[in-house]
Amino acid sequence: MVQIIDGGVTAPKGYKAAGLRAGIREGKTNKDMAMIYSEKEADTAGVFTRNVVKAAPVLWDKKVVAGGKASAVIVNSGIANACTGDEGYQDAADMAGYAGAALGVEAGKVLVASTGVIGFTLPMGVVKSGADMLAKALSDSREAAVDAATAIMTTDTHKKEIAVTYTVGGKQAVMGAMCKGSGMIHPNMGTMLGFITTDADIDSAMLDKAIKEIVEDTFNMVSVDGDTSTNDTVVILANGMAENERIVDEGADFDEFKAALTEVMTYLAKQIAADGEGATRLFEVRVTGAYDKADAKVLAKSIVTSSLTKCAIYGKDANWGRILCAMGYSGVEFDPNKVDISVASSEGEILLVKNGKAADFDEELATRILSPEVVIAKADVKMGDGEAVAWGCDLTYDYVKINADYRS
Amino acid sequence: MVQIIDGGVTAPKGYKAAGLRAGIREGKTNKDMAMIYSEKEADTAGVFTRNVVKAAPVLWDKKVVAGGKASAVIVNSGIANACTGDEGYQDAADMAGYAGAALGVEAGKVLVASTGVIGFTLPMGVVKSGADMLAKALSDSREAAVDAATAIMTTDTHKKEIAVTYTVGGKQAVMGAMCKGSGMIHPNMGTMLGFITTDADIDSAMLDKAIKEIVEDTFNMVSVDGDTSTNDTVVILANGMAENERIVDEGADFDEFKAALTEVMTYLAKQIAADGEGATRLFEVRVTGAYDKADAKVLAKSIVTSSLTKCAIYGKDANWGRILCAMGYSGVEFDPNKVDISVASSEGEILLVKNGKAADFDEELATRILSPEVVIAKADVKMGDGEAVAWGCDLTYDYVKINADYRS
Repeated sequence: MVQIIDGGVTAPKGYKAAGLRAGIREGKTNKDMAMIYSEKEADTAGVFTRNVVKAAPVLWDKKVVAGGKASAVIVNSGIANACTGDEGYQDAADMAGYAGAALGVEAGKVLVASTGVIGFTLPMGVVKSGADMLAKALSDSREAAVDAATAIMTTDTHKKEIAVTYTVGGKQAVMGAMCKGSGMIHPNMGTMLGFITTDADIDSAMLDKAIKEIVEDTFNMVSVDGDTSTNDTVVILANGMAENERIVDEGADFDEFKAALTEVMTYLAKQIAADGEGATRLFEVRVTGAYDKADAKVLAKSIVTSSLTKCAIYGKDANWGRILCAMGYSGVEFDPNKVDISVASSEGEILLVKNGKAADFDEELATRILSPEVVIAKADVKMGDGEAVAWGCDLTYDYVKINADYRS
Repeated sequence: MVQIIDGGVTAPKGYKAAGLRAGIREGKTNKDMAMIYSEKEADTAGVFTRNVVKAAPVLWDKKVVAGGKASAVIVNSGIANACTGDEGYQDAADMAGYAGAALGVEAGKVLVASTGVIGFTLPMGVVKSGADMLAKALSDSREAAVDAATAIMTTDTHKKEIAVTYTVGGKQAVMGAMCKGSGMIHPNMGTMLGFITTDADIDSAMLDKAIKEIVEDTFNMVSVDGDTSTNDTVVILANGMAENERIVDEGADFDEFKAALTEVMTYLAKQIAADGEGATRLFEVRVTGAYDKADAKVLAKSIVTSSLTKCAIYGKDANWGRILCAMGYSGVEFDPNKVDISVASSEGEILLVKNGKAADFDEELATRILSPEVVIAKADVKMGDGEAVAWGCDLTYDYVKINADYRS
């Protein structure tokens, strides 16, 4: 039984965190560095951007994760350390080294993440003093988790955290997580920065299997703007302090672990979509009746990424033609004359399209249904059992405003 | 030698046109129906949307084009006659029939196109009286071409026309064209509505070959918003009245014909991009040095469709990280550490990225270069000889505004 509790990355046993302003970008006042530390070396796994242009910290982390063990994570916001060449890679390695030195662990057991503007190098003096300050500030308190979750934000309007309890092998375990992400968010990769901690005992190979499977139905089904970032990173640490029998293969314990991870990652994915740059509402798309799950995912993503559909959601306009059109250009084969489309929210549900043609619906009711902060579009293709859910947001003036002058 | 002249679809010998307000949508005042007529039956070819959801007129036209001959085109704006089922197809057939009856030609030789809101059926009484009025108003005058080009507009801010002269087999021929398109515009199909007339004598199989080849480098390299329409149609009529020796195979005449068609379609493609919904400027992307042409096209399209890049262009922000990022997620393999990126316009040219890293450039000069109505981004991948050009526009508040309430 997976249960949500108040908390973040410090909720499981043995984890400390910190977040503070080190001074990564001059003229700013926000917290800009965070650290997570596990007092017991943890098994680790991660998923990373599939962008050919990978930021330096992503290249570093892939090596760390390949080793299967990590003790700490150090993160900065403000500068992405992407497109910075060999110098940037050395900076990422040094950042791990500074954290390692301050914590008394090897650099190779420290995960690194950066988020912010592409193309600038990190001020390494600031990073070094930041690492030292973070190590001193580490705490297992609730506030420390909040500080860390706040320090990794860029254009996010609020921090994104969750914690759950679950039971593995008769032992209660806890999983905590934080993430950031608001723009440059698009399916088909490990998306944004996400950090998950748990005290379960689980082999890194099983962690890897779980995170890769679950990311496909959670973070990879989110789109804010169709732009896949250079820095997308989701990592998980499992330090075994829940003292369950170590999970080394599939079975009931692995299933329970995956249920907890699914809860956590789904929650965070929806948080990111709802906090899309400039967004006024969360747009959830549910496709049913596709030929198979793969087709359902492509259809759902095509709808949730359609600029025209996103504008219609912003305008509370039940413009179902754009939804059907987006399905049509997705590349998936289906019979448009069989499709049913409806929209739903806390205000009710209304059928817009029956068998590919306009249903006789009440426009005013449709507008009311499209008004709350969470709106859902459902499309039934009536071909098979394929189902998928995708999350996005509306496209607004503010998205343009935020991104017309992000660098300045 | 292809030379641009003043004119539109009535420029070649034997073509008449008309455009007027029939009253397709109540409460509007714009011209909404157009007709093109060739006094001599013309060879014809066309390219159409690859959206699985195809509007009724597209299904009709595919049959007409398969026969290789057409005498007239009838078009309405305001209602797309898409997602209208069997009734919509019958309406498209009737629309051809009304035009044919008014003109004294078979319905099967009349091409039909519709553009506007998806999901509504056409008011067929209005269409019938419109067809009669159009047939009576037909003229080979310059003004008639202007009326027709104006009547097919929806969110377009201006009409889009061109005419050129060229020489085939020692005979001077003329090609004229009009098109519309502003939103729901995205590469990888026959895009928008385009109508091309010529008096050259050329077999429909050769017409088909030419238009399919050229559309790939012209209309299919345009993106406004990543949404592929249900109604995209480009058709060409060639009535042979230039009295050149009929073009039935490849050779110098076919090459000259293709040069004219390339000039016409490139011009119109750029017009559509520049008039993208809400756009303040034309954004041209030139990729060189890709492994092959196919890779270059994918890279160029990925840049030109990136929402973040489009916002940066709107903000006159030399945010090259977004350009490199968009190349990175395009799916094309390349070495980011070799890429050079520059921007250019009538204000000059400036190198932003040298071998994947920030060049030491003057931000103020970059902003000045990004200010004119036409701005160009160049990316050199340094892998091979692949080159491609794509056209798009910036993403602005007005795009959102236009599309948040298009139906109302």
